[in-house]
Amino acid sequence: MCQNHGVAYIKPGVVEVQSIEYPKLALGDRKCEHGVILQIVSTNICGSDQHMVRGRTTAPAGLVLGHEITGLVIEAGRDVEFIKVGDLVSVPFNIACGRCRNCKVGQTGICLNVNPSRPGAAYGYVDMGGWVGGQAEYVMVPYADFNLLKFPDKDQAMAKIRDLTLLSDIFPTGYHGAVSAGVGPGSIVYVAGAGPVGLACAASCHLLGAAVVIVGDMIPERLEQARSFGCETVDLRKDTPLADQIAAIVGVPEVDSAVDCVGFEARGHGSEAGTEHPATVLNAVMSVTRAGGAIGIPGLYVTGDPGAKDDAAKEGSLSIRIGLGWAKSHSFYTGQCPVMKYHRQLMNAILYDKIQIAKAVNVEVITLDRAPQGYQDFDKGAAKKFVIDPHGMIPN
Amino acid sequence: MCQNHGVAYIKPGVVEVQSIEYPKLALGDRKCEHGVILQIVSTNICGSDQHMVRGRTTAPAGLVLGHEITGLVIEAGRDVEFIKVGDLVSVPFNIACGRCRNCKVGQTGICLNVNPSRPGAAYGYVDMGGWVGGQAEYVMVPYADFNLLKFPDKDQAMAKIRDLTLLSDIFPTGYHGAVSAGVGPGSIVYVAGAGPVGLACAASCHLLGAAVVIVGDMIPERLEQARSFGCETVDLRKDTPLADQIAAIVGVPEVDSAVDCVGFEARGHGSEAGTEHPATVLNAVMSVTRAGGAIGIPGLYVTGDPGAKDDAAKEGSLSIRIGLGWAKSHSFYTGQCPVMKYHRQLMNAILYDKIQIAKAVNVEVITLDRAPQGYQDFDKGAAKKFVIDPHGMIPN
Amino acid sequence: MCQNHGVAYIKPGVVEVQSIEYPKLALGDRKCEHGVILQIVSTNICGSDQHMVRGRTTAPAGLVLGHEITGLVIEAGRDVEFIKVGDLVSVPFNIACGRCRNCKVGQTGICLNVNPSRPGAAYGYVDMGGWVGGQAEYVMVPYADFNLLKFPDKDQAMAKIRDLTLLSDIFPTGYHGAVSAGVGPGSIVYVAGAGPVGLACAASCHLLGAAVVIVGDMIPERLEQARSFGCETVDLRKDTPLADQIAAIVGVPEVDSAVDCVGFEARGHGSEAGTEHPATVLNAVMSVTRAGGAIGIPGLYVTGDPGAKDDAAKEGSLSIRIGLGWAKSHSFYTGQCPVMKYHRQLMNAILYDKIQIAKAVNVEVITLDRAPQGYQDFDKGAAKKFVIDPHGMIPN
Amino acid sequence: MCQNHGVAYIKPGVVEVQSIEYPKLALGDRKCEHGVILQIVSTNICGSDQHMVRGRTTAPAGLVLGHEITGLVIEAGRDVEFIKVGDLVSVPFNIACGRCRNCKVGQTGICLNVNPSRPGAAYGYVDMGGWVGGQAEYVMVPYADFNLLKFPDKDQAMAKIRDLTLLSDIFPTGYHGAVSAGVGPGSIVYVAGAGPVGLACAASCHLLGAAVVIVGDMIPERLEQARSFGCETVDLRKDTPLADQIAAIVGVPEVDSAVDCVGFEARGHGSEAGTEHPATVLNAVMSVTRAGGAIGIPGLYVTGDPGAKDDAAKEGSLSIRIGLGWAKSHSFYTGQCPVMKYHRQLMNAILYDKIQIAKAVNVEVITLDRAPQGYQDFDKGAAKKFVIDPHGMIPN
Repeated sequence: MCQNHGVAYIKPGVVEVQSIEYPKLALGDRKCEHGVILQIVSTNICGSDQHMVRGRTTAPAGLVLGHEITGLVIEAGRDVEFIKVGDLVSVPFNIACGRCRNCKVGQTGICLNVNPSRPGAAYGYVDMGGWVGGQAEYVMVPYADFNLLKFPDKDQAMAKIRDLTLLSDIFPTGYHGAVSAGVGPGSIVYVAGAGPVGLACAASCHLLGAAVVIVGDMIPERLEQARSFGCETVDLRKDTPLADQIAAIVGVPEVDSAVDCVGFEARGHGSEAGTEHPATVLNAVMSVTRAGGAIGIPGLYVTGDPGAKDDAAKEGSLSIRIGLGWAKSHSFYTGQCPVMKYHRQLMNAILYDKIQIAKAVNVEVITLDRAPQGYQDFDKGAAKKFVIDPHGMIPN
Repeated sequence: MCQNHGVAYIKPGVVEVQSIEYPKLALGDRKCEHGVILQIVSTNICGSDQHMVRGRTTAPAGLVLGHEITGLVIEAGRDVEFIKVGDLVSVPFNIACGRCRNCKVGQTGICLNVNPSRPGAAYGYVDMGGWVGGQAEYVMVPYADFNLLKFPDKDQAMAKIRDLTLLSDIFPTGYHGAVSAGVGPGSIVYVAGAGPVGLACAASCHLLGAAVVIVGDMIPERLEQARSFGCETVDLRKDTPLADQIAAIVGVPEVDSAVDCVGFEARGHGSEAGTEHPATVLNAVMSVTRAGGAIGIPGLYVTGDPGAKDDAAKEGSLSIRIGLGWAKSHSFYTGQCPVMKYHRQLMNAILYDKIQIAKAVNVEVITLDRAPQGYQDFDKGAAKKFVIDPHGMIPN
Repeated sequence: MCQNHGVAYIKPGVVEVQSIEYPKLALGDRKCEHGVILQIVSTNICGSDQHMVRGRTTAPAGLVLGHEITGLVIEAGRDVEFIKVGDLVSVPFNIACGRCRNCKVGQTGICLNVNPSRPGAAYGYVDMGGWVGGQAEYVMVPYADFNLLKFPDKDQAMAKIRDLTLLSDIFPTGYHGAVSAGVGPGSIVYVAGAGPVGLACAASCHLLGAAVVIVGDMIPERLEQARSFGCETVDLRKDTPLADQIAAIVGVPEVDSAVDCVGFEARGHGSEAGTEHPATVLNAVMSVTRAGGAIGIPGLYVTGDPGAKDDAAKEGSLSIRIGLGWAKSHSFYTGQCPVMKYHRQLMNAILYDKIQIAKAVNVEVITLDRAPQGYQDFDKGAAKKFVIDPHGMIPN
Repeated sequence: MCQNHGVAYIKPGVVEVQSIEYPKLALGDRKCEHGVILQIVSTNICGSDQHMVRGRTTAPAGLVLGHEITGLVIEAGRDVEFIKVGDLVSVPFNIACGRCRNCKVGQTGICLNVNPSRPGAAYGYVDMGGWVGGQAEYVMVPYADFNLLKFPDKDQAMAKIRDLTLLSDIFPTGYHGAVSAGVGPGSIVYVAGAGPVGLACAASCHLLGAAVVIVGDMIPERLEQARSFGCETVDLRKDTPLADQIAAIVGVPEVDSAVDCVGFEARGHGSEAGTEHPATVLNAVMSVTRAGGAIGIPGLYVTGDPGAKDDAAKEGSLSIRIGLGWAKSHSFYTGQCPVMKYHRQLMNAILYDKIQIAKAVNVEVITLDRAPQGYQDFDKGAAKKFVIDPHGMIPN
């Protein structure tokens, strides 16, 4: 049991499965008796991993990737009191101490005690505290009593593991975007982006009772996937303005709420397609959101982007039409989703069959060996969410 | 009673008191039997009037200015049911129908029925529906039953009219900024701008129980005014970074909440002083607001600014470091203050002596004739709020 | 067009269809130029009508019943500006002026200007302001611009009229109970009562994303109806305690949220069946709601109940185990649903097929002549919602 | 350092200072390596202690009292990571694990892991988990990283210790009542009860910006104390109805918000004075709270009261005029205050001189030996808050 393998970032465009250290209840000199070691049951490839793999960050070679983790507790530190060996658990991607000012009010995405360089941490991510990633066989999870969500019944959970594996990040993240944007029964919503987060957001909108969910993207397969579970779609490659495409669906050129599930690597729409226009999505959602509407921004914007096309963008400054948002009294909600705020309720929604989230994001289970291929396919825009099954535990 | 005089915009830098039409219960062809005619008791010069007077908008010559109005009802349309002739009333600067989807949920700043060209209207303002302004002797207020706040006792109200006159705009506007930013008991707040809205915001923060209110500006007299009622101040002309100045006051380089009371005509801080840097305030408040904090933006950002220094700014696009805000999970609240949401409670705070708002913003009462001088003094940065007394009704 | 017929209360147990006055734009001496006259398309019998018909109130003989109204505008007062003759509209059962302090914040259930004797009014209801009821061919609706919800497309609306007719009361009322109780995605909810409001509440819980909706009643047909659209049920005639019945469904003897859709005419459960126990439901919902949970109380409790079994109950005082609620940190939300707060969004949910509310409450359309029979059947516990079609306009 | 003395309940009406066990990092068999041992700097006598001392509960002889604790950390368990020996800290009276579902959402008053018999625990209180009380020299605080609030500067804190000692319970409790009741700038509030919680609530209302705070009680000295910091008062011994007394102050017979700071040991008002009327306060606050208002209920109501005057009250059932509350669309908020939700912000309000809470509740510091006398004086209605100084550390 003391062997371990994980997916490591090597250089732009390249990841590899390597032999890595078996986890300890520590991070360097920092003891983690509050932590547990998990045998990983499932661990997903995330769109935000791609930022690193594309070389758009300062991630060092050898960084073990993976922050979407579900697993079995196989060892618990002496300070762990309520989580037990044998529990099957979901791990929020945000690492949180449960003891700081922010954690106490549920803002686990900006915990003050887990990353010396800034608020907030995550597994296997550059600048996020140095915690080892979980696209691996085993991983250490600190502050286990606080962080982990235990599934009430292991057999039931394994039967729905394709859905439950999405609780560690993209389902809550998409849901958070929808909630931030004020989506509720009867809402008409525009979701920018039909990658896994966008699709999870769209499915969350349905769960929240939205009347119409319109998803925009430039990849036909992803739009097809959105339509497969009842969304309307707009094809952003077209020259028809977004507002007009929306009007063709709901009769008016605006929506109640919008969610930016794309972030800073946005590409130009219509005739600008093919080049990066990092503020395109933000400006587009302001243009189609009704006055008084809210805009959720779960899509990642960064403080430093060495690969950006201009100096301003390199430090995270984008040309945003704030004057338009102001005239429409918009409100804007940014930042990491605090997964813990939502995962218990969303687990219930899965366990009681109120949502088919795996189907919505088109989960494909792969072995650990095939992770590099998964990264490549995902980067090409596959309308799939890749879930790694490192121990062959996921039933067909 | 059928004569009327008002302050009209003539050309950049010039306003004049002119003989203007006595108001009718109509706006062009649109009948306003739901309206009343007011004898104006007090009407204030607002910082947002200055945008027009500086020539930074498309305001036409002859536009009668003024959207901060308090008055006596002297005539009521046949469909006015609850407001009576003789009532002394405060007029919210936002004109609202009380019957549309937005008004019904309290978003009176973006009423759908009072401005054919966009949601939201105001008296005496370019692109805001064509309603005649109230820096005048008389004015018409439509949808009077909905819009007006009646003071419960006229004598009591006249005795506090210097305070109550601020209910039509800047007191609620400053308060809205504070509330949007999540200010409450114990908060540590940064208010950008010590003009009248900034000072009203700072006083509102105190009313809301804030522990420390730090006000930043570049005009020493305005900072002095802020200190006069218990604020801490930072002088933005200094080269010392804002965060360091804040740390010198509260021990840490950040605040819980921040409010942008400046808007798009912001000038550079420190070594950039003297030139316009329209996104400076937004970027500054993000840099000093703690992770998880909220940012209120009552300061005006416009969709078109013909006088801006670059093409992007001309259409309201500014270079905003959204990546920083995202990393800190900030939320942002923009738009006109919906005055009605707050004016009744703030009236109580005035009537029961819980706030000295006139003193905080340094009200100076002037005659209608002196309005042009008031505009000039205000434009030069006088630490005063000019209140016009067109009928000589305000007691000394 | 100047004839009119309506359902009048005669004496306990008896209602009759009578010739009644054709409506005017007035209520006695009070002019209502802000009102419209509707040709009624559908008008529903409500459980709260039964309180009057059972003789449990001081309703006078001749009172024209009916507060659930949908209709076509056939005449509009001179102050009506946005609603037009020919519009097909839903009428919220709460009459509201749109101009008072409460209406301005959306509390239309306690409008201050429509009932001299207390806040709040309704059509055709004792002590609710004297407004004429709408189980009739024609009715007058005051403050039409404010109160009415216009359907965007008449043909589309007529095709879904069985669903849309429920927007005037029970759909929003049931939904309000659910929202008050904090129901959202993943919630486990107990709904007390499977009459139309209880069923509408249960369907609303599903719309809101609830994981499990458990409905309790003592009438098997109503429980069967609840099961028909996916609810779990508990039979309150059984001696098995409610908590145990809940535990048999969800594994624990408690729920996240509970809604009292019964009110003061509650009957004893289990061995106490058959006699009135007016606080039974309130005490039961406290006993099964988890600590920290919220309890929505759309079920009616009255200030005076001449037919009650004891003196305390006659004045609306019930023996409530508040100590239990306190120990569990419960919160309680009472009062009329402010329909306007919800009806637009719920209309969208209907129009976009997100809910089958007519099916959930088992709508049965009847002619006006058959209204007295409808009252009798409903009083006997028919698992139906009777919708009167006074002009034969509802398609089969 | 291994000696300890504390205040023990002996029998109805009698408490004694006894030699008690020096605390261990354990509760019986339950290890508490997450806990710390405090040298107690201040510890207050609470009105809820009186319920036990009056014999109105099943508290056993020998129970060590005290749940309002401030102290110095002198020993820390091995799993305490952020709190350090030497820290000066405030202890919330609610004991909370920081790891359960309720703690994670801030509901620390109903923690699921600290009391086997029900949600929620406290130090030194019957049925609250068996944790040893802190009217003593030393006490153990479990889950120290989560529970404790560290004061930023010890010298500054000792200079304000009379105020800061109130952060452990009554200041947040009174504040919670006010917040629950929707108190904010401009509110007109009725606070029932002028004991320490009532006075803390009244002072909190001022901090929140209330326009008028009316306090009712039957003890003249307590009313005098309320007037000393700007409250209006009503004397409930008078025959004049409460509504009339309120109207004499604010011109109308009702308030926006009301807070019940009395609880189940309420006595009759006016002519009913002298006998217990446990629902009197609840019914009174409903009668004077405006329609749509909210009612905060921090006053304690119990599930069992062996000393009550009737069988219903013995099990916590009271005759409540819920029909009146329903007609007025009231909402009701019950339960223990979750201290952690508020204590940091209220600490700031104290440290930055925004509130004089010790003065408002009239703190009197006494030695541990004088605690029995303090209990007696408090029971007689002294308008004081007794703060025990077990080590003579509080400066004069």
